[in-house]
Amino acid sequence: MTRTNSEDKALRERAYAVIPNGMYGHQSVALLPDGYPQFFGRAEGAYLWDVDGNRYLDYLCGYGPNLFGYGQADIDGAYVAQLKRGDTMTGPGAVMVELAEALTAQVAHADWAMFCKNGTDATTMAMMVARNHTNKKVIVRAKGAYHGSAPWCTPFKGGTTEADRANQVFCEYNDVESLEAAVRQAGPDLAAIFAAPIKHDTFVDQEPPSPDYARRARELCDEYGALLIVDEVRAGFRLARDSSWSLVGVKPDLSSWGKAIANGHAISALLGANLCRTAATTIYVTGSYWFSAAPMAAALATLGLVRNTDYLERTVSLGERLRRGLDETADRHGFRLRQTGPAQMPLIMFDDDPDHGKGYLWNDALVTRGVYFHPWHNMFVCAAMTEQDIDHTIDVADQAFTVVKKAGKPAPATKLQVLRQLT
Amino acid sequence: MTRTNSEDKALRERAYAVIPNGMYGHQSVALLPDGYPQFFGRAEGAYLWDVDGNRYLDYLCGYGPNLFGYGQADIDGAYVAQLKRGDTMTGPGAVMVELAEALTAQVAHADWAMFCKNGTDATTMAMMVARNHTNKKVIVRAKGAYHGSAPWCTPFKGGTTEADRANQVFCEYNDVESLEAAVRQAGPDLAAIFAAPIKHDTFVDQEPPSPDYARRARELCDEYGALLIVDEVRAGFRLARDSSWSLVGVKPDLSSWGKAIANGHAISALLGANLCRTAATTIYVTGSYWFSAAPMAAALATLGLVRNTDYLERTVSLGERLRRGLDETADRHGFRLRQTGPAQMPLIMFDDDPDHGKGYLWNDALVTRGVYFHPWHNMFVCAAMTEQDIDHTIDVADQAFTVVKKAGKPAPATKLQVLRQLT
Repeated sequence: MTRTNSEDKALRERAYAVIPNGMYGHQSVALLPDGYPQFFGRAEGAYLWDVDGNRYLDYLCGYGPNLFGYGQADIDGAYVAQLKRGDTMTGPGAVMVELAEALTAQVAHADWAMFCKNGTDATTMAMMVARNHTNKKVIVRAKGAYHGSAPWCTPFKGGTTEADRANQVFCEYNDVESLEAAVRQAGPDLAAIFAAPIKHDTFVDQEPPSPDYARRARELCDEYGALLIVDEVRAGFRLARDSSWSLVGVKPDLSSWGKAIANGHAISALLGANLCRTAATTIYVTGSYWFSAAPMAAALATLGLVRNTDYLERTVSLGERLRRGLDETADRHGFRLRQTGPAQMPLIMFDDDPDHGKGYLWNDALVTRGVYFHPWHNMFVCAAMTEQDIDHTIDVADQAFTVVKKAGKPAPATKLQVLRQLT
Repeated sequence: MTRTNSEDKALRERAYAVIPNGMYGHQSVALLPDGYPQFFGRAEGAYLWDVDGNRYLDYLCGYGPNLFGYGQADIDGAYVAQLKRGDTMTGPGAVMVELAEALTAQVAHADWAMFCKNGTDATTMAMMVARNHTNKKVIVRAKGAYHGSAPWCTPFKGGTTEADRANQVFCEYNDVESLEAAVRQAGPDLAAIFAAPIKHDTFVDQEPPSPDYARRARELCDEYGALLIVDEVRAGFRLARDSSWSLVGVKPDLSSWGKAIANGHAISALLGANLCRTAATTIYVTGSYWFSAAPMAAALATLGLVRNTDYLERTVSLGERLRRGLDETADRHGFRLRQTGPAQMPLIMFDDDPDHGKGYLWNDALVTRGVYFHPWHNMFVCAAMTEQDIDHTIDVADQAFTVVKKAGKPAPATKLQVLRQLT
């Protein structure tokens, strides 16, 4: 291959001088196979180009925000039009009210909306509203579930204190007995049960919510006077046009949204039921850019596409085509994949690959051939992808399986050992 | 006057149905005089138009972000050009490195940069880096100073727990003895001293940092092995082209930036010294939009204007013209104003106005005449203002003094009583 990465390499060196480690957070490629580029030059539809001009069919979708395609014309057009009228002003624009109306109309459990910037803002506000509503403290949530990177919830302990993580009790996702035990432990101090809409933790098989678990969470909240919070930041509008647990018939009291709600423009939201509206009026939360009008205009345009296009059916159908094709191809090469999660939010790992050696080699072969997959984080299918894109992906995966086969026993993914030092 | 507010009124009613209290956070006008509009339709240069089309010369500047004028062509042009290439992608653009290089070149104490979205993100990360670096917990900070609205620092207690506020000791700003006492109380567990670059608290006279206080903070940090954090979110690049305490010859280890660094586009930053670079590599902080390229391009363009224009000298000179003019006008009417803070970040209150009755009436008269002042929050002069704007402001203030004079003893600002219930 004549793929070059000299620009990326040069930028990484410059970055290393002025950014700790050269990069941080979920978009750092420090823990990924060597073929992954760190810096991108361009994005359009389902495609990304790195700074060396290499093109990728992008199954990370910005780690979630890209639902309708990078640079989608209606959404970016709405953004730019509002930017020209006014964005970060001394108060909100009319679009804030329109967006709150549109979201509460779209999401059945929601009677009100508050806007913020980070997914973490929305989950933190959900926790605050629940504590304020109940005048209780304890949050029950699932071990390993990501709800943001504030000191109370960041998955690594560096820079945090025990006090930051106080008043939380953990359970196993989808395990009713474990949930009940956690709630008993919280006892009369239970403020809320937090839940991801699906189990979309890194490194492990994804799971849909068991209806029993979801319903029991709702019952326990009602029994204890606590609030049920569903964290839709990653999965919102990717599983349903309503809140994700509408699929199992369970209404939360609060839900946190972000990522795809404005197709990548910076906005997140907390949606809530009337039950806890008063509590939401007496927490003080705000941010310099929380009332900026342009991302709200983009979110409103995104919601229009959520309502009026078949994006959901198409991403599901494309995801299923991918899943089938990869299973057939793997089988032909004598590999077994663990493909879990909803088809449109797949996590793909090799069976019998405890040290991630096969997965790292396969993903490296994919990315260096222009398909941006991830070895241990769920991926996303976006509405700008086509059947041809999926079929091309399966062809490239075929070549990547050949690479893994030739390697015999691939080297373990030693980069991952760093993770153990951090937890 | 033929000023109407029917659109604003109608929007407030709609907002009340779908947003708790109809609005929240620092841009809510619930605590301001009745004449303040809640929703804006347009912004350009130094001016805002509310949704009814009333125009305001805006001295809030979006509560800080607007430094070079709303819709500044170079900055918004850079934003839109980058948006077309790629904004929220699966990794950062080259512009992230360029911006980190530009910021560390601009701010003398800074060897590295990390980007985020909210000012609160940057202050929270500063705290985490300090705790990680020192392996100690206690933060000393000044009573009444605003450093964000996360549970650890939000000024109101609703929805927070005592654990959220653990490991903090408070002192009086500019009071060396009080600072020393707080540090003694923290003792060997001191992780950091937090400082606003000036005292810019709401409701009280603003104060420049006493050089003794700033220097003593630095000494105490060095003595205890703690880190000095200066929170530049509100004042950054408004007092100096370097960090604000460069004016008193004191270098912090960490500084948090936001608001004006991209003239209103959503980005904030933590800047740090080499001393604590390693600690910054082992905290886990991230956000869905933290690596978005378009706000970084806007920040880079803003920094160009910081370096290459006389914005700073002009905003100071405009602010001084305003201060002189208002003092003369007040004097003519027999009033005394307390004008504090740097001229370009003025807080203006009436002397002898404990219940804010005069201030509320005067500000109401100003805003309904098209000058957007604030009765108890510091204001901002932006580089898009002109001497004509300042002179017009003084004329309008003249009329507003007449209104206050006619009222004799104005009614107290009863809206403010709500604040007492929240703290």
